[in-house]
Amino acid sequence: MKNYKLIVAYDGTRYLGWQKLGERGSAQYARTIQGKLEGILSRMTGEAIEIHGSGRTDAGVHALGQIASFKTGFETTPAEITAYLNRYLPEDIAVTAAEEASERFHARLNAKEKTYRYSINTSAVPDVFRHRYEYQLEAALDIEKMRAAAALLVGTHDFRPFCSSKRTKKSTVRTVYAVEITPEDKKIAVTFRGSGFLYNMVRILVGTLIEIGRGDRPPEDIPAIFEGRLPAGYTAPAKGLTLLEVVY
Amino acid sequence: MKNYKLIVAYDGTRYLGWQKLGERGSAQYARTIQGKLEGILSRMTGEAIEIHGSGRTDAGVHALGQIASFKTGFETTPAEITAYLNRYLPEDIAVTAAEEASERFHARLNAKEKTYRYSINTSAVPDVFRHRYEYQLEAALDIEKMRAAAALLVGTHDFRPFCSSKRTKKSTVRTVYAVEITPEDKKIAVTFRGSGFLYNMVRILVGTLIEIGRGDRPPEDIPAIFEGRLPAGYTAPAKGLTLLEVVY
Repeated sequence: MKNYKLIVAYDGTRYLGWQKLGERGSAQYARTIQGKLEGILSRMTGEAIEIHGSGRTDAGVHALGQIASFKTGFETTPAEITAYLNRYLPEDIAVTAAEEASERFHARLNAKEKTYRYSINTSAVPDVFRHRYEYQLEAALDIEKMRAAAALLVGTHDFRPFCSSKRTKKSTVRTVYAVEITPEDKKIAVTFRGSGFLYNMVRILVGTLIEIGRGDRPPEDIPAIFEGRLPAGYTAPAKGLTLLEVVY
Repeated sequence: MKNYKLIVAYDGTRYLGWQKLGERGSAQYARTIQGKLEGILSRMTGEAIEIHGSGRTDAGVHALGQIASFKTGFETTPAEITAYLNRYLPEDIAVTAAEEASERFHARLNAKEKTYRYSINTSAVPDVFRHRYEYQLEAALDIEKMRAAAALLVGTHDFRPFCSSKRTKKSTVRTVYAVEITPEDKKIAVTFRGSGFLYNMVRILVGTLIEIGRGDRPPEDIPAIFEGRLPAGYTAPAKGLTLLEVVY
């Protein structure tokens, strides 16, 4: 058995998300990124391949550098795997690199750091070539207030108030290393780098930062949200979110 | 009656092209850019608005700066027109500017110069975020040969051999001011600036340049094609083509 690591890029618009759903071979299964990859690799190898991603991405979320790993006894090479996948994948999913990994490498369990970017277009006019990848929100956002709030998010915190599945028994403590807010003309990119992110966490953080940027609430709400005294903001739409990079 | 000029951007993927088809209000009509715009403007003004574009773009072709003009007796302003259109247009069509034009302005008849860009991705790996806007063609293209051929296209010529409707009785003489070939990593942009372009002309020019870039035929075929001694190349796919700008 050899272990392979893939870098996968996808436009998530047409998909139900990374994680496979339904039975192998079902229509639902084929509408997930994981299902698409497993289907093609199983055909290539003649084995029922199981792929592990660095983590789930929701329906409609995109990736430039999702990482996946899988094991196979089939004799092949990284170049063959890349070529075979890209030949059979639709044009909105691509394998940008493949390599042999050490036997113990696991895309999810070994992930140390992830970077996500959330893109907002505050113009009244949608960008017709980018509208699938950004949240169209005609609004005047105060960048300095958003940056003040972002600074309060950095560090090791219990992010449970910023997570959609509040009843999980697993630890919801995560470390956010950096939140950068980069305006360019009418577009704003919010980049998050952290040890890991909970279910919907980036989208809820962005919704909260937008409420602060609009002046609907002050940056000082952030500590009150961590303390459970105030609710977090709304969940920003999936389409603005892209998983940029995973570090091991 | 006032005359208005619009700058229109669109992702042509879902459309049958610029030019309206079928009856006003039919499903076909609404699958054209012109039909979409006329429908919304007619609703806004209560008149049966007729829009003139600078020219047709084929099914699947995109635009960053298509120009359209229309007349109306309805009392309004360019800002209101832009806001109304962008409120009701789908996110893959946008009006990026509107202004009042002189009474005699006509988007097609007064067009003096157009610029088109054709985008090719020669990588083995599709760009998942740009695949709708570029021709995916894994090939080694010789840029210098393509540039040598491009230089032979510049000038005033009868471009009938590079046109799909060879039997037209109208003049097929056009002036191409510049053809620029700009490689960047594995992507190649071919930009055409000219007095006007015939039906499918840019796509056939690109197909011919690709055949030359692959080494399937020499740059010296260009004069032979103009003279009718050799056939032009194939028609490159619509999705790589974008109308960038129209000058009046």
